[in-house]
Order: sequence, then structure tokens, then C-alpha cells
Amino acid sequence: VPAALDPDHPAQVIDRALAAVRDRIGPHDDGAIADYIPELAAADPEHFGIALVSVDGNGYGAGDVDVGFTIQSISKPFVYALALADHGLDAVAGRVGLEPSGEAYNAISLDPDDGRPDNPMINAGAIVTASLVRAADADERFERVRETLSAFAGRDLSVNERVFASEAATGDRNRALAHLMKAAGALDLEVEDALDVYFRQCSLMVTATDVATMAATLARSGHNPVTDHQVVDEQVAEHVLAVMATCGMYDASGRWLVRVGLPAKSGVAGGVLAVSPGQFGIGTFSPRLDDRGNSVRGVAACEALSSEFSLHLLHRVERSEPVVAVHRAPEVPDGVTVLRLRGALEFTGAERALRALDPAESHIAPTATLVIDLRQVLGCHPVAAAMLDALTLGQQAAGVKVVVLDPRRRGLVPAATEVDHIDALDHDIPERVPADPMS
Amino acid sequence: VPAALDPDHPAQVIDRALAAVRDRIGPHDDGAIADYIPELAAADPEHFGIALVSVDGNGYGAGDVDVGFTIQSISKPFVYALALADHGLDAVAGRVGLEPSGEAYNAISLDPDDGRPDNPMINAGAIVTASLVRAADADERFERVRETLSAFAGRDLSVNERVFASEAATGDRNRALAHLMKAAGALDLEVEDALDVYFRQCSLMVTATDVATMAATLARSGHNPVTDHQVVDEQVAEHVLAVMATCGMYDASGRWLVRVGLPAKSGVAGGVLAVSPGQFGIGTFSPRLDDRGNSVRGVAACEALSSEFSLHLLHRVERSEPVVAVHRAPEVPDGVTVLRLRGALEFTGAERALRALDPAESHIAPTATLVIDLRQVLGCHPVAAAMLDALTLGQQAAGVKVVVLDPRRRGLVPAATEVDHIDALDHDIPERVPADPMS
Amino acid sequence: VPAALDPDHPAQVIDRALAAVRDRIGPHDDGAIADYIPELAAADPEHFGIALVSVDGNGYGAGDVDVGFTIQSISKPFVYALALADHGLDAVAGRVGLEPSGEAYNAISLDPDDGRPDNPMINAGAIVTASLVRAADADERFERVRETLSAFAGRDLSVNERVFASEAATGDRNRALAHLMKAAGALDLEVEDALDVYFRQCSLMVTATDVATMAATLARSGHNPVTDHQVVDEQVAEHVLAVMATCGMYDASGRWLVRVGLPAKSGVAGGVLAVSPGQFGIGTFSPRLDDRGNSVRGVAACEALSSEFSLHLLHRVERSEPVVAVHRAPEVPDGVTVLRLRGALEFTGAERALRALDPAESHIAPTATLVIDLRQVLGCHPVAAAMLDALTLGQQAAGVKVVVLDPRRRGLVPAATEVDHIDALDHDIPERVPADPMS
Amino acid sequence: VPAALDPDHPAQVIDRALAAVRDRIGPHDDGAIADYIPELAAADPEHFGIALVSVDGNGYGAGDVDVGFTIQSISKPFVYALALADHGLDAVAGRVGLEPSGEAYNAISLDPDDGRPDNPMINAGAIVTASLVRAADADERFERVRETLSAFAGRDLSVNERVFASEAATGDRNRALAHLMKAAGALDLEVEDALDVYFRQCSLMVTATDVATMAATLARSGHNPVTDHQVVDEQVAEHVLAVMATCGMYDASGRWLVRVGLPAKSGVAGGVLAVSPGQFGIGTFSPRLDDRGNSVRGVAACEALSSEFSLHLLHRVERSEPVVAVHRAPEVPDGVTVLRLRGALEFTGAERALRALDPAESHIAPTATLVIDLRQVLGCHPVAAAMLDALTLGQQAAGVKVVVLDPRRRGLVPAATEVDHIDALDHDIPERVPADPMS
Repeated sequence: VPAALDPDHPAQVIDRALAAVRDRIGPHDDGAIADYIPELAAADPEHFGIALVSVDGNGYGAGDVDVGFTIQSISKPFVYALALADHGLDAVAGRVGLEPSGEAYNAISLDPDDGRPDNPMINAGAIVTASLVRAADADERFERVRETLSAFAGRDLSVNERVFASEAATGDRNRALAHLMKAAGALDLEVEDALDVYFRQCSLMVTATDVATMAATLARSGHNPVTDHQVVDEQVAEHVLAVMATCGMYDASGRWLVRVGLPAKSGVAGGVLAVSPGQFGIGTFSPRLDDRGNSVRGVAACEALSSEFSLHLLHRVERSEPVVAVHRAPEVPDGVTVLRLRGALEFTGAERALRALDPAESHIAPTATLVIDLRQVLGCHPVAAAMLDALTLGQQAAGVKVVVLDPRRRGLVPAATEVDHIDALDHDIPERVPADPMS
Repeated sequence: VPAALDPDHPAQVIDRALAAVRDRIGPHDDGAIADYIPELAAADPEHFGIALVSVDGNGYGAGDVDVGFTIQSISKPFVYALALADHGLDAVAGRVGLEPSGEAYNAISLDPDDGRPDNPMINAGAIVTASLVRAADADERFERVRETLSAFAGRDLSVNERVFASEAATGDRNRALAHLMKAAGALDLEVEDALDVYFRQCSLMVTATDVATMAATLARSGHNPVTDHQVVDEQVAEHVLAVMATCGMYDASGRWLVRVGLPAKSGVAGGVLAVSPGQFGIGTFSPRLDDRGNSVRGVAACEALSSEFSLHLLHRVERSEPVVAVHRAPEVPDGVTVLRLRGALEFTGAERALRALDPAESHIAPTATLVIDLRQVLGCHPVAAAMLDALTLGQQAAGVKVVVLDPRRRGLVPAATEVDHIDALDHDIPERVPADPMS
Repeated sequence: VPAALDPDHPAQVIDRALAAVRDRIGPHDDGAIADYIPELAAADPEHFGIALVSVDGNGYGAGDVDVGFTIQSISKPFVYALALADHGLDAVAGRVGLEPSGEAYNAISLDPDDGRPDNPMINAGAIVTASLVRAADADERFERVRETLSAFAGRDLSVNERVFASEAATGDRNRALAHLMKAAGALDLEVEDALDVYFRQCSLMVTATDVATMAATLARSGHNPVTDHQVVDEQVAEHVLAVMATCGMYDASGRWLVRVGLPAKSGVAGGVLAVSPGQFGIGTFSPRLDDRGNSVRGVAACEALSSEFSLHLLHRVERSEPVVAVHRAPEVPDGVTVLRLRGALEFTGAERALRALDPAESHIAPTATLVIDLRQVLGCHPVAAAMLDALTLGQQAAGVKVVVLDPRRRGLVPAATEVDHIDALDHDIPERVPADPMS
Repeated sequence: VPAALDPDHPAQVIDRALAAVRDRIGPHDDGAIADYIPELAAADPEHFGIALVSVDGNGYGAGDVDVGFTIQSISKPFVYALALADHGLDAVAGRVGLEPSGEAYNAISLDPDDGRPDNPMINAGAIVTASLVRAADADERFERVRETLSAFAGRDLSVNERVFASEAATGDRNRALAHLMKAAGALDLEVEDALDVYFRQCSLMVTATDVATMAATLARSGHNPVTDHQVVDEQVAEHVLAVMATCGMYDASGRWLVRVGLPAKSGVAGGVLAVSPGQFGIGTFSPRLDDRGNSVRGVAACEALSSEFSLHLLHRVERSEPVVAVHRAPEVPDGVTVLRLRGALEFTGAERALRALDPAESHIAPTATLVIDLRQVLGCHPVAAAMLDALTLGQQAAGVKVVVLDPRRRGLVPAATEVDHIDALDHDIPERVPADPMS
């Protein structure tokens, strides 16, 4: 611990961890700044910031986390979220596909029959997505986009008008995509109206901290943890994350999911957004890009964070402790079995509860009363709740009295029939831990 | 609960849930049996089984879960796992890509420069993958493949020789892919040697229960929960799941990840494998295929299970309870602060612990002693362990005595410096629950 | 011969032949009128005209040869001719390729490196081609295009403004192509300026007779046989024909060259242009199109004409007669050899002349004087002229006196050294015909 | 003329012209020898021969015209000719397309529906083509191929067994193509049987002189001018030339047709074949290849010959002389009109004959007798014959007596009704030449 760490602010260790990653990666000077418009070419190539916002809404950072840059393609998942909120997944999927294209961001990758773009993360798909935002006209449409992205960022975002003007003036490839889709019937709006919104959304100014906040809002299922505002509903946020997971990094998306394992999105101005669902959002900014258009240092920072923090989506927490214990020991009054559950219950925990009451497995004979002790349960996945519900009903049908021990009456297991609640056990039960089948 | 449910076997509710899905989907008779070889064409189109094996190794099922069929493409992720175990991810990634191709299973989707196939889930990639298995010759190579798949399935698998003979005789498209890759330098073995192993691996006979067991082995990070054998290491299992997540369902992989949200793989004989990481594996069998070559009822069953059980990879457990509580109330002896943690700790829990000790946030002044109460902690993610470690060091540097309360001495927080351990608190602490920032 | 044939107008047999083809093909009512704009959809599907203009400038026809329609893609070879005239083949080939694309007329078939379109007959290539026409602005550029096409047609062509307005309003796919090329640097003009000229050129009104005249102008190496005006030079006309031969019928070009064997071009309004080089031009009009966008009856008419008239480019005239005779018979004065040549001399005739003087082949001993009798020679290909020139020089070097017999002194064989000319032979030579090596 | 030119062998000027081209191009040492098998890599890069065989069967050459090399892809058009002879164009076109692919020689360019290869000049198409040759087995099939190619070359060709063995051992890409086509139903034979013939045909040894003879056989419509043997019929030869014209030089075919304008084919061992229809065949040999696999010096030699000899297919012979004269001058007996025709008659000449008898154009009043003077006609295209036939019938219908003057009774104009023949005119007619409309 460096001398300067303030003991009154222990969370500074997170800033320190980010700073350490930044220090290690900072010397990388590979890549080149996007220069297709002067406004991007003028960026300072040395800028490098890493921001992290937790699902509790706390911000951490290292380096240039407050330097403004245009959001560019990082806007795509958020406008997609807005379109999903307006129309639902099925309707939007009828207009923009869900498949990775295996191609670059500006690929002409349209369905040969109906012109439908492959996915909302490539330019063609993003143009159609923006066109789906409900509005009377392009101005209203963009204002809704701007408000939504601002809600994700937790502050009012505004357009860099010079970048917008340049994008609009030079956007021939995007115009081409829009006209192709218009010709194929995949785009309903007039081409210039559709592009106007798209170019504006790409020109919104953000900071690495903004990007991290937007990512944290997705990490917390659509709820902005800084402003405490539910921006989109949980299902929309999940869909956006799923699409980012397969399509977010263009033709490097598969490698990214294997190596980094976080839903992510990059922008040509140098931003990278990454989401650790349920944990935090990351925003990085460094303008030099690799030949796929992703920030060199941003990608490296995400890889380092994923590796050091074991963030991969498919990496599971090692559990050293079983989540279920069933007791019928001398200390327990005759005729009472106690089923103690712990932690955040998913299928596995609930299955163990079910099997723990099978005499063949637990060697504990059924008794007249079953106490389900939920005091150490932190939460309950729907599948686990349903399984415990079925357990309760089955025991009751067999004549067992089921009692729930949850002093705060959280309603974790909404039994279809009545159960009694108690607030304490008469006799405490020592921790007699069976061997964990997963250890 | 139906009358027949045996109160002594509560876990039957899982079988019942699978049976309900099977009953609902069974009437679907869309699709057509693969008929490119007589052996597949002879399958009974009405067969339909759904099997589930939990990470505890318990098996559940409904319908024809013990009917044998050839594994076909479901073999691909497991042979890929073997190749990864032999060579490591980097070496294998140099030979077989990681990107979804957006194309069909038999696509000619090779790197124009070096002939490298896009990913190991398409036929071209699977042929190269099989060729990478270390062995002196084709027989030894196939025997290693067979042994590995048998270890995943938990029983000795064998080849359906008639299917193998037919596949070998008619596999012109696969021969074409192999020759193309040979010509481009992407395949080192002789074409017929490579295909021999590939055709054999596809002809291994399995049941839906076998497939569910193989899936459960991936769900439990490479550890077969039935045989209690670690077949491949955790990192390999994670890589395989990540590749299945983006490439497992061919040109429907993106939609699958959005809609179903489980790493999966299908085979042309009618099998589907799906993995709920950390929870269970699913295996289904129903021979009628859609026009992408996926089992119609198998896909529907996975969709139903994912939806009803909320299995989507990006769906988070709702936590109704904070994982951290900090106490310094009158009941607690002077100069002692108790930091009580709960559940499976990830970043969020650890962050809360750090912030809970920040006087500006917790309004609890620092004291001479900090007790970290880990009794209700079920496990600790590496990032959380590192953060608690940093917390400990920071407090010690500030002169605070840090004491860990973990009667079973599980070593969850391996502090760099010494800490004292205690086995109980002198005074119990009532549950004074602060508002959960995520509720 | 039908009774109505006027003996004073024997050339009516050509009209009759066209009428017979039209009668036979007329009943075909396959295909559908282009309906992407109302102005095309309103065409009368029964219209059917076949016009033929010979390289002497005589017009023949059957049916609706004077009905106006928009020229559409038939404009492409003529604007290409103008661009070639402005810049030369090399410069134009640097901007528009020469390769058949094997794809449809509106294919996005651009060079991946520089956006160069494959050839000038697909839309993308035609847009670039039009942009290359030298002019200060779009209006001047179009006026030059209009004047050139008018010169090919032999009358002042004008734009159908309603068609132009509709094409401009709906031309999303062409706009897309233009923007793609602009983005890739393949198009220098502003997109709308380039498209304005392109849409106008496609909207020029023509008749089948006009199209036949334009074709005849190409057939006569750029010289309009009706107006007797050299519109483009011979080399330009040859290049245009060569490009039409490989690319004129889009993705059916190869089949067309094999089956019909005439350079050709079709337009979406129902016109077809075909060229029999050195013989005549054909223009047909019938609005119903096949699924490749070619007029069904127009294609059938060209196939019928090619087949019945043996027009295939690679079909050679059967020559029943040798083009060379060499004489040294009793009738001929001692010491004089007469080399009599006939017809239009190409390599073969000149080669025969050379070999005829080889004593080993002709068994005619060299004499003091060689008379080259050109009276029946109709023309002389450059290679033949060069060979006869070499022959003359060689004979002179060997001491033979060479005399040319060409009373009209046409200068067919421009000998590097002096030759004498005579206007008649003292003794006539009977036709003593040797066996023709080609018979 | 160099001193060494032998006056008794004037045709040596052709050898001299070839030698001059060879001398000018010889210093080019760009390109690289094919080295995918040792037998090709061992070729002497300095070898360079240019051979020309005329349609009269005379051979000319410069340099290494007798050095043996493997024919490779130059075999393709000849095996295609054999398949056409066996089955006819329609049947063969149902199995192998006629469209240029715009791709390289080894492109995987198959019809997505039926696997049909694009054209017979790419490898895939050539493999199917060879498989179509009628035979009981592969040996008989190859023997027919060998005999046909030998008949085109005018000598017995044999296989270079070492090249064949190497091709067969390394031909993975061709195997891949064959398996793909087999899988798609486009190839009926067993893959190895089909490839065996294909690899053998490519391994036949030829010289530049052989190639020139093969080309000359195509130039003379399928008749080998050296052996005087009709190898394939005229229509087959025309089809082969048409396909070579669009597809012969792979992805450079369009440019080749524009720049060189001769049907051509190249082989990877360094041979190039080019055909000047009706004139001669060219064969060149120089092993260094450009990056498209065409011999660098062979291509340059063909370009030079085409340019210097004005060989472009679409280049027309300049005719300085009208092909028709009509006479009714004082010298001619009352009531007799003489229509004198000259040269090789095509449409244009016949049209002029028709129009010459129209009083409105010729200002010559009809007379009782029309003499058609064919003495200077060298040959008659079918369309011209038909037109003269119609002319005769029309005149007869109008009461005019038609007399043909063709002392050798060649039957050039097969009138449907009787005409009288005469062998001479009573009075000679002076050459009164009207202005040529084409001059």
C-alpha cells in the first residue's frame, strides 16, 4: 500500500488498481488516431483515462476520465435500448437482425431478401435502429435519443456541432448504406432524416466517467445507480447486453468474448465501454486505434481488468461453503427438521434443498415439522423460489407442517398455500457442515 | 402437486417440470429428419427426451432420455476442449479462429490468407480441431477423443460403425473442406487421416442423459459431477463455453444468445446440448430438424426451459438483502467495529465493505479494532479477496488491529500480513439492516 | 416471295425477314414490365419493334420501331465512348474496370481497395463513367452526353422529364452505389451531380430505329452511316464493342456471347441494342423483361436473327475461292511472273502470296519480273500490307523487278522503295485455279 | 530486310516478325516460375518461344518452339470441345456454365443451387467437363482425351508421368473442388476418377509449335490445317472460341478481350495459346508467370502481335473498294443490266446488291435481263446467299430473266427456281466505280 493511501477512504484501493493498470498500459503508443475528419484528427493521442462506476453508483478512475470526446458507436447499444423500449424485441428483431456479421463496422452486410442489417452494432443496423425511435420528426427523434443517452449517463449530454457537421459532410459510406436499405425497403424514413439522427447521436460528447456510468446502468439491469433512475426495464438491458456480447466488437467479437468475456462496445473517437453485469461498468478513453477501429489502450485495459479481476462472464465464483444444511440432531426438539439455506439461491441451492429432504440421501427420517431457515438467504432466483414452493406443497401434502424462519418476512418463497412464520428457533443449531459436493 | 408425487422424493418436481415442458412441446411435428444417410433417415421421428444433470450430479429427465443416437456436431466442443488441453488457447487459436461466421455449419468460411477456419463449431473448424489432438496416428488420436468424450459423459462411448461407414462414404463436402484447408496449409494431417477421426467422433452413440452429463461437466468447470472426475481444467471449460456462446448454433447463434442465453450445441441426429453454468446441463433428443439443422423440439425445449427457469446467462439473481453490515452500536464493546459480510462475495460486496469503513459514508468513526465477520460468507471471488486484502493492509497501516471471525479458518482472505483469528464474538450483534443500495 | 413484294424495291426482303422474326416471336408474352416507377409501368406491353440499320445507312424494320421509350442502360456504352474520347482507354481503365462481374446490373461490385467498379456496363461503372465526361458542371456535362448520344442516333434526343424526376426520386440503390464509390475515392464529383447526369442520360427518349442507328454507328467503327458523321474514332468504337461483348448483358453475358455472339446492351424500358460489326446495328423494343432485366422478346429476336443470319462474331465466311493465284504459263511473256490477289486481304491472303513465290511450293522458278495484280483486291488489312511490303523488298533485294498492277493506284501496298505501276497486262491470263488449301 | 533473308523463301518474313517480337520482349524477366511441384520449379526460366501456324498449315517460329512443357490449363478448351462433341452445347451447358466468374482460376465459384461451376475454363469447370467425356472408365476417358488433344496438335501427345504423379499428390484444392461438386450433385463420377483424367490431361507434354497447331485448328473451325483432319465440327470450334473469349484468361479476361482481342488460354507451365479466327494460331512458351498465373512474356508477346498485326477480333479490314457495281452503260447490250459482285460476300455486300437494283437509288431503269456477275466473288456468307436468292426470286416474279455469270459453277447462290448460267459476257464492262458509302 503506497504511503499516500488514506486509511479513512479504503475504497481508494480501487482507484489504485485502475491507476496500476493505466501505468502499465500507458506506454503503449501503437495505433493511429482516426483522421477521416479534422475534429477527430485533432485529438491528443496521449489522453488515457479509465473509469469504473459500480452498481452502487460509486465512481473510480485513473487518468483522463473527464476529458470530453464524441461517443460515436458507443451510442449504438443505448439507442437500441430505446428502440426496444418503444417496440419490443420481436418488432425490432424484424427490422434489425441479431447475428454477428463476422465483418467490419461499416460492412455492407444486409439480408439479400429484405435488406435487413445483420445486427444493431454495425453502422447499417444502427441507422435502422435510430430510425425506429418513435417521434413525429427527426428533431423530436434525436431529442428522445439525446435524453435517453443522458439518462444513461446521468447528466445532460450535448452535440459537438463541428463533429456533427463534419460527419454529415463526409459520411458517404453511411449514406450508401442508408440508400441501399431504403432501396430494399429496410428503412422507412427518408435517408437524410435517418442519417441526421444517426450522425447527431454519434456526435454527443461524453467522458470516460460518463461511459462508465452508462455501462453501470446496463450492469444494474437498466437502473442508473448514480441518479437512481430506471432508464429502461430489466429485459431491455439484458437484451442489449446479449447483443453486445456477440456483436459489440465487430469482427473481433468472438475473440473478445473468449478473452475478455464482457459485453462491450467501442467508438472511433477512442472510447471503450465494458459491462460486468451485476458488478460495474467500465469506460476508457484513448484515441489511438488498432486496424479494426478499437482503441489500442482501451482494449488492453479491458483485457487487463478482466484478467486481473477475473471478470469473465463465464467465470464462476468459487464457493467454499454449501448453501444448504439440514439438521435433525439431539439438540433439535423431537419431530422438528431444520432446513437451513444460505446465500443467493439459484437452481443448485434449491435442488440441494429438495434432495436434502429425501431420506435416501440425507439419512434423516421425515418429521412432523419442517422449519425452512431463510435467515442467511440473500436473494432467490425465480427458479429456486418455484422449487422451494413445490417443496413446501409436497411436504404439506404429505402431512408435514412447514414453518418458515425469516424474521424480516421477505416473502422469498411465495407458497401457494399457507405456511406459518416464526422469528427464531427455540434451540440454536451448531454449524454441522456436510461435505460440499462442489468443493 | 399431482397425487403421484412421492413426498419422500421432493426432487421429483424437477422431473415433473421437464415432463411438463415435454408435454407442451411434444405435439410439434415440424421439421424433417436428416436423410443424407440411411442410418439417420431410419430414426423414429416421435422420439423426444429431455434430460437434466445438475452440478451435484443428479439426473432428471422426461421421455426418451435413454434412446441412443449419434452425437454428431455435439462432439465438437468436447474435442475442442481436448485440443485446448493439449496445446493451450493461444496455439489452438492460431489454427482455428474464434469468430462467428454468420454462416451455415458446412460453410466454406476460411481465412483467405491462411485457410484458417472461422471457429471450431463449424465443420471446417472441427476437422482442424480434431487434427490437433496429440497422437502418433489416427487410431490413437481417435482413441483419445473417444476417451475424453466418454469421460465427459461418464460412461464408455462407442462408435456406430454403420453410421461411420456411411458418413465416410458420403462426406464429400467435408472432404472438400479438408482438401481446401490442406491446400492452404491449415491442415497438417493427411486429409483422410483427419476425416477418419472426425467422422468417427461424429458417429459416437450417446443418449440425452449422456449429453446432459457432458453439459453438466462444462457447467461445473470441467468436473464431471457424476463420476467426480476433473476431465479438463476450469479455464478450458470456460473457453469452450465462451465459444459455444457465440458460435454454437451456427447462423442462429446471435438470436440464440439473445433469446435463450445459454451456451449450446446441436447435432444433426437430433441432439441439443445446453449449459447453465454453475447450475446444470441439459440434453435433449428429437430427430426432426429445422432448416438450419437444429432439432425443432430440442430448440423449443431449451427456449421454454430458459424462459420458465430464467436461465439467461445475463439474467442476475435478485438480491433482497445487502451483503455487508457494519456495526458499532452500544452492544459492541468500546473500540470494536464489526464488519459482517454475507453470501458469495464478488466485486460489489467487497466494494461495499471498503466503503462501509469510510467515515464519510458510514458515519461510524474508526476504532482500535476491526472484526471482519466471515461466518456467513459462502465463497469469495478473487477480486473480492484482493479488495479485502487491501482493506486489511490499509487498516493495519493506519494502526487498526484487524481480526477475522471465521471459525472454520477457510482462508478466504489471504492477508499479506498477519491477522488474528477469533471463533466467536463476545456479544452477539442484532441484525440491524441498512437500506440496500440495490433494492 | 409474297405477292406484295415490290420488284423495284428488292431490299424489302430485309424488312420481310425482320417481320417474319417478329411474327414468330410476337406471341411470347412472358416476363413483366418494369414497375419501379409509374412511368415505366404505364408502357404498353404489346409494343414490339425490330429495327435494323446497315453500315450503308439504310433502315429496315418491323412493328413498333418508332415508338418512343427511355434509353436507360443502353446509354452506357455511348457515354463510355465519350469518356474514352475525352481521356483515352488507359486513363478510363484506371477508374472503371474492364472485367465482367458475373453479377446483376445493380451489383455492389467494387474493387475492395479503391472502390473501382468492375466495368462500365453495370450501374456503378456507368455512374463513374458519366462523371468522367469533361465539363465545367453537371449541366454542361449532361449536354455533352446528350449531344453525343444524339450524334450516335442521328437526331436530337431529349429527356423524358417525368421519367427523370421519378428515377431521381427513387434511385436509392444508385445513390448508395455513388456514395460507396465517393467514400472509397472512386468518384470525384459530388454524388448528386454525378447522379443527375446519370439519371438524365437514362431518361433520354429513343425509338428502336434510333437504337439501331446507334448500333450501326458502332458497327461502322464510330461513323454514323445515316448522317455520315464520325462520332468517335475507330479505336474507341472497337473498345466499346469489346466491353459490350463481355459485359453487356450483365450476368448473362457469357451465355449471350456463346449463343448470340454479338456485342449487345439492354435497357430496363425494354430496348435491346446489338451490333454486327461491319454489317449493321439492331434495335428492338418490347417492354416485358425476364428476371435479369432483359427484354424477353428483344433477346429472342436477337437470338433468332443471329441464328438465321449466321451473325455470330466468331462465325467465318466460307470462302470457296483462293485469294491468290500465281501464273507463269506459256501465255505469259518469258521472265514475267504474275501474282494475282483477290478480295479483302488479311494475314492468310498475304501469307499465301509469300508462299506462292517459294519455288519449293509453287514449282514456278523465279523470273526477272514480278507483277503483283491487285485489280480484284477490295481492301488490305495492315498486317497483309506489311507482309506484301516485305515481299516486295525481298524480291527487289534479290534482283527481281516488281511491278504493281492497280489501274486506280489505290496505294494498297505502300512499299518502302519504289515500284513501277502498270495499268494492264499485255496478255490476259486465264483463270487457272489451284486447289484451295481451305476448301 | 536483313541480309540473310533468302529470296526464295519470302515467307521467312513471318519468322522474322516473330523473332523481332521475341527479341524485344525477351529481356523481360519479371514474374516467377510456378513452384508448387518440383517438376515445374525445375523449368529453365530463360526459355522463350513463339510459334505461329497459319490456317494453311504453315508453321513459323522464333526461339524455343520445340521445348516440351506440360499443357496444363491449355488443355481445357480442347477437352471442352470433346465434351461438346459428345453431348452438344445444351447438355454441356446444363452441367458447366458459360459465365465469366470474375475470379481466379482456382476459385470456388459454384452455383449455390446445384453446384454447377461457372465456366469450363476454371478448374472446377474443367474437372466437370472432363468427367462428361463419354467412356466406360477413367482409362478409356483419358485415352479419348489424349487422342483428341493429339488430333488438335497433329502428333501423338504423351503424359509426363512425374508431373502427373506430383499433381495428383498435391492437388488438394482441386480435390476440394471435386468433392464440393460431388456433394452438390454437379459431378457424377467418383472424385478420384474425375481427377485422374483431369490431372493426366494437364500433364500432357506439348511444345509451342503444338500449341500453335492446336490454336490453328480452332482458327480453321476445327480442321487441323497440318494434318488436314476435321477434329471437331465447326459449331463446336465456334463455341469453344466464344467461351475462351470471355473466360479464357480468368479474372483478366475482360481486359484481355479489350486489349488483345483474341480468344486465348494460358497454362501454369508457361504456355499461352491465342487464336486469330480464320487466320492462324499462336503458341508461346516462357515459364515465368505474373501473379494471375499467366506467362509474363507470353502475354506480352500476344499483346505485341495483336497490336502490330491489328489482330483484334473487332477490328475490321478497311475496304477501299465497293463490293458491288451495277452497270447499264452504252457498251452493254440493250435490255441487259449487269450486277457485278466482289470479294467475300456478307450482309453488307448483299444489301448493296439489293439496293443497287432499286431504280430510286441506282437511277438505272430495270431491263429485261439481269446478269449477276459472280466471277470475282470469293465466298458467300449464308445471310448473303439468302438475300441474293430472294433478289433472284423477286426479279423473276417481276418478269426479269436472271442469268448468273460464274464460269466455274460454284453454286454460290442456290436459287429456289431455275436460273440460266453463262460463262462470259459478250461485251466487257469497264470498271466504273461508284463512290463507296463506307470509304
